[in-house]
Amino acid sequence: MRCISLLTDFGLSDNFVGVMKAVILKINPSVSIIDISHNIEPQNVFQASFLLKHSFKYFPKGTIHLAIVDPGVGTDRKAILVKTRNYFFIAPDNGVLSLTLEEESPQEIIQIDNPKYFLKPVSHTFHGRDIFSPVAGYLSRGISIYNFGKPIKKIKKIHFPKPEIKKDKLYGQIIYIDNFGNLVTNISKDTFLGFVRKRKFVLRIRNKIINRISTSYQDSDKKETIALFNSFDSLEISIREGSAKEALKAEISTPIEIIIVK
Amino acid sequence: MRCISLLTDFGLSDNFVGVMKAVILKINPSVSIIDISHNIEPQNVFQASFLLKHSFKYFPKGTIHLAIVDPGVGTDRKAILVKTRNYFFIAPDNGVLSLTLEEESPQEIIQIDNPKYFLKPVSHTFHGRDIFSPVAGYLSRGISIYNFGKPIKKIKKIHFPKPEIKKDKLYGQIIYIDNFGNLVTNISKDTFLGFVRKRKFVLRIRNKIINRISTSYQDSDKKETIALFNSFDSLEISIREGSAKEALKAEISTPIEIIIVK
Amino acid sequence: MRCISLLTDFGLSDNFVGVMKAVILKINPSVSIIDISHNIEPQNVFQASFLLKHSFKYFPKGTIHLAIVDPGVGTDRKAILVKTRNYFFIAPDNGVLSLTLEEESPQEIIQIDNPKYFLKPVSHTFHGRDIFSPVAGYLSRGISIYNFGKPIKKIKKIHFPKPEIKKDKLYGQIIYIDNFGNLVTNISKDTFLGFVRKRKFVLRIRNKIINRISTSYQDSDKKETIALFNSFDSLEISIREGSAKEALKAEISTPIEIIIVK
Repeated sequence: MRCISLLTDFGLSDNFVGVMKAVILKINPSVSIIDISHNIEPQNVFQASFLLKHSFKYFPKGTIHLAIVDPGVGTDRKAILVKTRNYFFIAPDNGVLSLTLEEESPQEIIQIDNPKYFLKPVSHTFHGRDIFSPVAGYLSRGISIYNFGKPIKKIKKIHFPKPEIKKDKLYGQIIYIDNFGNLVTNISKDTFLGFVRKRKFVLRIRNKIINRISTSYQDSDKKETIALFNSFDSLEISIREGSAKEALKAEISTPIEIIIVK
Repeated sequence: MRCISLLTDFGLSDNFVGVMKAVILKINPSVSIIDISHNIEPQNVFQASFLLKHSFKYFPKGTIHLAIVDPGVGTDRKAILVKTRNYFFIAPDNGVLSLTLEEESPQEIIQIDNPKYFLKPVSHTFHGRDIFSPVAGYLSRGISIYNFGKPIKKIKKIHFPKPEIKKDKLYGQIIYIDNFGNLVTNISKDTFLGFVRKRKFVLRIRNKIINRISTSYQDSDKKETIALFNSFDSLEISIREGSAKEALKAEISTPIEIIIVK
Repeated sequence: MRCISLLTDFGLSDNFVGVMKAVILKINPSVSIIDISHNIEPQNVFQASFLLKHSFKYFPKGTIHLAIVDPGVGTDRKAILVKTRNYFFIAPDNGVLSLTLEEESPQEIIQIDNPKYFLKPVSHTFHGRDIFSPVAGYLSRGISIYNFGKPIKKIKKIHFPKPEIKKDKLYGQIIYIDNFGNLVTNISKDTFLGFVRKRKFVLRIRNKIINRISTSYQDSDKKETIALFNSFDSLEISIREGSAKEALKAEISTPIEIIIVK
């Protein structure tokens, strides 16, 4: 059974997500639809890009990933269909696929513009229903990608803040905060280990100092602030049985620094 | 594969929705269940009626729509099963199907009262689990609608506030607010265009004046209040990359008026 | 089609739930996955235990229930797979299965420790993805439970506060609050009826006095506080078309007493 994943900022209060699924099932009744998340902050293309990067590869080969965070709906921003070695991606051309396509490079990019596969009339405000879902439905039935439009070469990219190394200091920041209030940094496990090696370090965030990497969320006293490597393979700041977000009053972009101690 | 849609005010924190799906799958394991929404405001039959009207027709023919916003559960309000040309609807008889059945007229209405198809004992507080879901499950297996109860002629209707025209003014109001804070009015695109024709107009909501219809959410400066036709084919008030609900302190029933300018 | 249920505290904002489903479908594409809830309060094993108890038996025979509220992830707490007469349960060994296994006794308990069925590398923070989901996926394909680890005899139990009877008084407390603000007590219908028999009683919660059991949520004037037996077969405090939680400022552990009137 073919799988389609959905990632949007539509929320779960309106009928938007249900209607998209209805449109897909009307075209292909034997598809499995999996929600990655619909609670992306409205119009936050970065957040969606981050979650897609950390989700796509867990899905069955051939999965069609729809990522619809689309502040430009109804304007002349393109709609794209990207084929990679293992997956298909359908999205507005606004960079939401950026981080993913760094890991899984495009074999073909199609600019979706064949109205044969759209719902009519196409609204100016809900291409998720009128364009993206029907295209995903037909693609899941085996329609060739070249039927949906013409190949193009370039798509829009967005860039995440990269960590910086200056002498004996590594500067990063919080780029994602999860449901538990855990603070995900832009410092990967590899970057951290490559920088620190076997040297002593202190990690500073807000007014907290941490000087070791914990091995689990409970590797600490209660309410202690800890650092550990999370399931995204990133450095994460956490508090045992508490919310680091609230305790540290941290938010997206809150800086973090790691300093080598001599 | 037969499709069943769910629309409730049960929320997603309790086990109510999961248990309804379990009951359905126990009776018919090969059905697709799609959530329209479970975040209807508690007991808000109007809101559910609005979302059902704007969702049902996107589903595959033969879909069984369950709409359970049911403040009268456990009283003598009826449970009904409505067959239309393309769909089945199962709901408490409280008007939640009103707007939908104006578009898709009933061919047969059954008062559900055959306990053979209920879970036992039937609770006084959760007919979603004990009556509506098992009936949907058996219906999806092809049981005739006449097995569930006797045909009746009349069901309860609720009425939405209609827009009013007085000379050169069109008066409407906000009837739905979406996840993005967009304000959906009770003025359809057709009503608006029929009233305004090619004349100049100003639209007033709260202290804002708008004098044109935008073609997309980005057809404006940032933070500007705009009017456009949305995917419900209604007149909608929106703010680019912001929440019109918050900016205008608007709510359900907030008035809006369109005045022809001479 | 085999059914897998999910009950977690992961919330629906991150990609955690979607990724677990992806992992399962990659192993067994023809499984039905049903969400019981993902909005368990972070780390609240009691709440999850309560909802699982009131959900599991509505699912088709053979369903694999995953209950992942796991503050001890990454420590040496065990991962367990329990086979009962009708179901399978997969969970961290922290008591989350306690209430359920009082009703549906274990036929076999396996300590999951065979890495052959894990995703690699196993993270220290997300065994839902790396251990529990793949084990559920393989189990749903018919792999014998003995392949996942060795049988053990004892698992961790947690205990819910039991109601107490002292002479002519029955003392209980609120143990769950639902989406509507209804207050679920730890007093079962049987306990209540066995205690009260046909005698007159008054029920006291906060500053409210109730002296009868209502038959439905609407068996009262609007905004009146009532007591009734809910779909969990427990005594519940409710307010017609309102939130008892808010009106009474009640919370988990708020006491309730029933006093026989002479």
